[in-house]
Amino acid sequence: MKVGILGTGVVGSTLGSKLIQTGHEVKMGSRSANNSRAGEWVRANGVRASFGTFADAAAFGEVLFNCTAGTVSLAALRLAGAANLKGKVLIDVANPLDFSKGMPPTLSVCNSDSLGEQIQRAFPSVRVVKALNTMNCRVMVEPSLISGEHDVFVCGNDPQAKGAAVEILRSLGWRSIVDLGDITAARGTEMLLPIWLRLWSLYQNQNFNFRIAHSRL
Amino acid sequence: MKVGILGTGVVGSTLGSKLIQTGHEVKMGSRSANNSRAGEWVRANGVRASFGTFADAAAFGEVLFNCTAGTVSLAALRLAGAANLKGKVLIDVANPLDFSKGMPPTLSVCNSDSLGEQIQRAFPSVRVVKALNTMNCRVMVEPSLISGEHDVFVCGNDPQAKGAAVEILRSLGWRSIVDLGDITAARGTEMLLPIWLRLWSLYQNQNFNFRIAHSRL
Repeated sequence: MKVGILGTGVVGSTLGSKLIQTGHEVKMGSRSANNSRAGEWVRANGVRASFGTFADAAAFGEVLFNCTAGTVSLAALRLAGAANLKGKVLIDVANPLDFSKGMPPTLSVCNSDSLGEQIQRAFPSVRVVKALNTMNCRVMVEPSLISGEHDVFVCGNDPQAKGAAVEILRSLGWRSIVDLGDITAARGTEMLLPIWLRLWSLYQNQNFNFRIAHSRL
Repeated sequence: MKVGILGTGVVGSTLGSKLIQTGHEVKMGSRSANNSRAGEWVRANGVRASFGTFADAAAFGEVLFNCTAGTVSLAALRLAGAANLKGKVLIDVANPLDFSKGMPPTLSVCNSDSLGEQIQRAFPSVRVVKALNTMNCRVMVEPSLISGEHDVFVCGNDPQAKGAAVEILRSLGWRSIVDLGDITAARGTEMLLPIWLRLWSLYQNQNFNFRIAHSRL
């Protein structure tokens, strides 16, 4: 499958490399087509890897990943262009973390709204699926790093788009995929970030993930 | 131990009954000493059970539980009276859920503040420990209802008070108790409520809890 990844940071490049390893073609996109980090990534990942602008990546991909920083995601998607995004499945991995008031970051949107919903409202023809925003990117692409059962949450308004996202999650190794319903559930998954950040500080590593444990009955 | 419970709803009465079963004396407190629900609870729970006003319960307890609705907790604590609360360990079980804008509720405080912190600021001499606010009250008092490992989170500024809370949690059957640090971590645990509410809706039951799963290494 042709996958476009918006954002060339560690999340985008880690996801991109894994998607290439599992047989996909990936174009990374950033603000500028002259991005030295993306250039290195292409050289390291071979013939199925390419890069360009946000618009190039969006036009290329049948499925898109939003791996930009949450506070600039809407701007990045505007640069990608509504025409290039139209009808596409967009897996939104970003969290609206605001570092401008110091550490720990707060959320720039939460409680009665979410980044996932903001993106869906701004681009109504895009089929937004919020997923993979509740764990470190090494865990995203290698869930077996974590012992025992643990979960990835998905939500979105379009069942077919969620189905496509679930298929990709399975190919990354995810077994327990919890469908929380429509895109408003992104509030809940984005609001996991404050405790996730606290746990990172407590354990001094990011090798953990959430699990919903159930009744014996 | 003498325990005062503020709030005579299902959370307070469930916790109170279990604390009596484990050998404690419990006084429930509400706005009025003529509370028919609390009267029934006393009749059902025997000689170690009593009830009175918020002030009566606060004066009685060596350890206190805040089981009032989060949006009225500060008012209830003011009725309990700073003199009765002074120096006490207060285990804050409440969540600031605001139902006034319809379902699902939002949080009346979150992100850069929390109910736990508001209580600690309003009553600086009280030793607030946030705990047990991330699961249904049946799970609170009988963690073995849930299969496998699962967690209860505690946070607070006073290590001794957290020690007292941990001792009570162990007596309720909790084995995995995660100390998140100071009371600002209450933001993280209160912000678990939106996904908890969504999971309740998904599973159509409240017999689940959060687990932090860890690396194999």
